Amino acid sequence: MDYYSKYINKLIEEFAKLPGVGTKSAQRLAFHMLNMPDEQVKAFTDSIIKAKSNVRYCKSCYTLTDEEICPICRSDKRDHSLIMVVENTRDLAAYEKTGKYEGVYHVLHGAISPALGIGPNDIRLKELIERLRGDVKEVIISTNSSVEGEATALYISKLIKPSGVKVSRIASGVPVGGDLEYIDEITLLRALEGRTDM
Amino acid sequence: MDYYSKYINKLIEEFAKLPGVGTKSAQRLAFHMLNMPDEQVKAFTDSIIKAKSNVRYCKSCYTLTDEEICPICRSDKRDHSLIMVVENTRDLAAYEKTGKYEGVYHVLHGAISPALGIGPNDIRLKELIERLRGDVKEVIISTNSSVEGEATALYISKLIKPSGVKVSRIASGVPVGGDLEYIDEITLLRALEGRTDM
Repeated sequence: MDYYSKYINKLIEEFAKLPGVGTKSAQRLAFHMLNMPDEQVKAFTDSIIKAKSNVRYCKSCYTLTDEEICPICRSDKRDHSLIMVVENTRDLAAYEKTGKYEGVYHVLHGAISPALGIGPNDIRLKELIERLRGDVKEVIISTNSSVEGEATALYISKLIKPSGVKVSRIASGVPVGGDLEYIDEITLLRALEGRTDM
Repeated sequence: MDYYSKYINKLIEEFAKLPGVGTKSAQRLAFHMLNMPDEQVKAFTDSIIKAKSNVRYCKSCYTLTDEEICPICRSDKRDHSLIMVVENTRDLAAYEKTGKYEGVYHVLHGAISPALGIGPNDIRLKELIERLRGDVKEVIISTNSSVEGEATALYISKLIKPSGVKVSRIASGVPVGGDLEYIDEITLLRALEGRTDM
């Protein structure tokens, strides 16, 4: 790649490190950046620098926030005895968008994955157990329905049960609006197992 | 989007401005950036800042380079009487990768597109015409085979012809290794028109 200036090669290389960005996309992004007006480039780099220096973990639920305690954990309108466990802040936002969940959250920042070398001590599990000392009635486990998410859910449920706190898991099944013929067998069986009276 | 800190929202917004990056990808990239070690984030932003401050246009061919005159234009091993006109620096690199082209280049930085409001004065055409005052034998037009690229090629060829300099256009046809049944009709007709004796 000595067809470009070393600065351009370095820029392409840095973009190519981002998730989901291949060499061709990295080239396109790098040249786009070079053609952008200086003030727009500054706005872009400033947004990164500011986010990195201001965003930290909420001391209660460990979501990413710019305050010591995030607005959800601070709110007296939320039910603090109900904790939903999610893998990351984006999953928290997904439930917040529904506007219907009234409890609080606990963000693990990952899921247990022996394949990736991520064990129980690499995610915010100890911090969850500590929160159970307070007045907690139920822990809803909303990790993904992936192999890692399911393993994490099982691990957490075994860990919490002795404490007597109720543990639940969000339902797996056919997505609303989903067409049965396009849904995988495991999901269909889950939907069958989880059927409810009507 | 008040589910995230304002710094995170701003970061997502900035990533979403990049070409080919939708809202979901922008979120993924923003959170990836927040989870990256500080020194990696610094390497990323530094690469942008350094590229922006060091990369400029070659004063001869207008490719992006970190020198006043790019290495190709400075080289005495290249045939300076042969100028290949390309739309951007990536197209120049594509021909350089072949390792077989021995002439020099002229980078337009765009193509004429009435739909996007890009006219002949918005690309480096005047600069190309100025270069023809030197000892130029042939101009090879290698703009893309898109509508804009073809229109630009036609415009340039009409502009140069009166000067007596030879103007050529790279061949359109079936890509090497291409399977005829998957190739569009226009390309097939171009390949037919451009057939050569054998």
